[in-house]
Amino acid sequence: MIEPTDKKRTSRRKFLVGAAGLAAGAATGAARADNAKNLPPDVADWTRNLGEGVGVRAYGQPSKYEKDAVRRTVPWLTATPESSVSFTPLHALDGIITPNGLCFERHHGGIAEIEPSDYRLMIHGMVDKPLTFTLDDLKRLPRVNKIHFLECAANSGMEWRGAQLNGVQYTHGMVHCVQYTGVSLKLLLEQAGVKANAKWILAEGGDAAAMNRSIPLAKALNDCIVAYRSNGEMLRPEQGYPVRLVVPGWEGNVWVKWLRRLKVGDQPWFTREETSKYTDLLESGKARQFTFVMDAKSVITSPSPQAPCKQKGFNILSGLAWSGRGKIVRVDISLDGGRNWRTARIDGPVFDKACVRFYYEFDWNGEALLLQSRAMDETGYVQPSKDALRKIRSVNSIYHNNGIQTWALKPDGEVENVEVG
Amino acid sequence: MIEPTDKKRTSRRKFLVGAAGLAAGAATGAARADNAKNLPPDVADWTRNLGEGVGVRAYGQPSKYEKDAVRRTVPWLTATPESSVSFTPLHALDGIITPNGLCFERHHGGIAEIEPSDYRLMIHGMVDKPLTFTLDDLKRLPRVNKIHFLECAANSGMEWRGAQLNGVQYTHGMVHCVQYTGVSLKLLLEQAGVKANAKWILAEGGDAAAMNRSIPLAKALNDCIVAYRSNGEMLRPEQGYPVRLVVPGWEGNVWVKWLRRLKVGDQPWFTREETSKYTDLLESGKARQFTFVMDAKSVITSPSPQAPCKQKGFNILSGLAWSGRGKIVRVDISLDGGRNWRTARIDGPVFDKACVRFYYEFDWNGEALLLQSRAMDETGYVQPSKDALRKIRSVNSIYHNNGIQTWALKPDGEVENVEVG
Repeated sequence: MIEPTDKKRTSRRKFLVGAAGLAAGAATGAARADNAKNLPPDVADWTRNLGEGVGVRAYGQPSKYEKDAVRRTVPWLTATPESSVSFTPLHALDGIITPNGLCFERHHGGIAEIEPSDYRLMIHGMVDKPLTFTLDDLKRLPRVNKIHFLECAANSGMEWRGAQLNGVQYTHGMVHCVQYTGVSLKLLLEQAGVKANAKWILAEGGDAAAMNRSIPLAKALNDCIVAYRSNGEMLRPEQGYPVRLVVPGWEGNVWVKWLRRLKVGDQPWFTREETSKYTDLLESGKARQFTFVMDAKSVITSPSPQAPCKQKGFNILSGLAWSGRGKIVRVDISLDGGRNWRTARIDGPVFDKACVRFYYEFDWNGEALLLQSRAMDETGYVQPSKDALRKIRSVNSIYHNNGIQTWALKPDGEVENVEVG
Repeated sequence: MIEPTDKKRTSRRKFLVGAAGLAAGAATGAARADNAKNLPPDVADWTRNLGEGVGVRAYGQPSKYEKDAVRRTVPWLTATPESSVSFTPLHALDGIITPNGLCFERHHGGIAEIEPSDYRLMIHGMVDKPLTFTLDDLKRLPRVNKIHFLECAANSGMEWRGAQLNGVQYTHGMVHCVQYTGVSLKLLLEQAGVKANAKWILAEGGDAAAMNRSIPLAKALNDCIVAYRSNGEMLRPEQGYPVRLVVPGWEGNVWVKWLRRLKVGDQPWFTREETSKYTDLLESGKARQFTFVMDAKSVITSPSPQAPCKQKGFNILSGLAWSGRGKIVRVDISLDGGRNWRTARIDGPVFDKACVRFYYEFDWNGEALLLQSRAMDETGYVQPSKDALRKIRSVNSIYHNNGIQTWALKPDGEVENVEVG
């Protein structure tokens, strides 16, 4: 804080504005001159004129000063731009809701461009009565609204072999959290009438990859949503417009986008996405398969490499935690690489299988710190260290890295992604 | 629903795509031809190619098919474009979160364009220690995250003299609901040290209108937030970037945007906005003043004039309810202009002073209906009819019209704004 009596509180811009404002007033006409005459010379430019907002925007956009709050890509991460991924700027956000424009996206074969009037969802296979729904059909069925996180199984995947990427946007930015609106999948399956011996469903997308995944029927009948809205408005194209599957708490790959088909069967289909991809190769040579649930995880979003500590003294440590098994009940913070832990303050609502926001307020005297966060969920599960996870899973994995992240805060305020222990 | 065996389920587009796709494949090269060869001719175009999404957008935008979901203006409503208002497309939204780009906006003198590094907030007047905060100062103080509705006092103001505007976007679109992140105003005032005999604060904006309002100190110390984020990202320019005051449950005019000054005093300032504006002239010639609280209100967003009933049979009635006095506990629905009422289903979270989403599923046989909704809050207050409200307030008012809205659903499915009784 600065007390108003502090005479040094004169920003560069205020100086410029004061001088330029008066000069322009004299030079460019009576109206401006009158305006300038009636205001003291240090009144800011934004109070002297009407700003850029005279024309109202039909669809609003962020401030031009917020260029850092954008999705970013890692060009070398995917073989071709058609199979792409972009990351949510977690370091530039707060609260639990991700704005639709900043939700990370991962697509395997471009973004399908579907005319909503031509959209169809087919339910077939082991059902009494195969059905096809138009988008209007879906909109005329009872709706549910749920706030859930969505995390790509490969989030933090680069970190298995040690600290790699310097930025929480890159290490953890394949997670977002929005309010979905749609139809309970259970309701749709009940309308079709699932056969008694059915056990799985296949969900398939309408994009060029025709991405498909097998999902146990029990999950489909539990809490899945055939969703068409995110944060109130229709889904964005890259999120599956007009319809995607919401599979709360499970890896993002099964949240099939541009959903066109649900087939009911009695065994999994062993699609490409669950055989060559989205399995976890262990030390033994065996691979874990159908590892759907995203275990409890957390990360400090600030301070972090993209959000350094600007000043000594009172500072806010802020982060996100989530669990695919239920509600987050506690988040702990360490400032010394895991030796000592204190409980963070969770602020804002705590929903089932949703992000929660935590804070830890601390005084920083400029010493080097090793910042960590550790999430606990309502099942009693505690987020493990990366090393504990590696002991069980080896380092062959790409997916399901929910290990504790360490940020090294340096005396100059910069932050680095590091390994401890 | 359409069963897949129905041979008539061949949309115009599918036909065109089938024919055009094969022709293009033959004409424009081997890759395309190969692709076409391997797919049956009725496979949709969006599965045949990579769509528009090969390049990832840094900041995502809605689908090009969602042109209806935009803010709209009523050009004759304000004297000049500098004093403007745009309306949230409530008919095109669902859930409780309003996307930042669709939040209504009202500004009295353009949209201030403030460089965040030059932003200052001053707290002065009856305090022990006047203080000035930079934006970084505010960001280094403990944060709160709250989901609240924001309603302009003039929302539904045109309706005092009878049904005027045909569209829920225009009759009720000056309300939105987002998650705010910021600093408790109480904390800031405590740092400055409020004098024992202080009773009011003046909040003033940094825009060209220098909009200012008096707010009772008790409210300021209760639940107000000096907010800089909305749905996770920094406030949009038209919402007060970088800082606005959040005054939960109170009329939007006191949620001062581009907040630059908070003065503590022992009486209200009787500013222009609380003398010539934002008072309610009664039949007696007296005017209500400092009528801050937005009473419980609700509206059916669909069906509504901009969202007609497309088909007979099972239909979803959907709407929003909110109260400035606490939580919404019940919403009732009438299909016959208020003679009979049934309880709607509230879906999704219910927060204090926030929008709730309600649904009523009904079978429509094509008869004319008079649709109404009626909100009740936790204080026991019940949303009144427009006529009951007019008896107390007369029709001189502009502000605080929370009367029950009636939509006439006609046999052809069209919906009109009407008066009943």
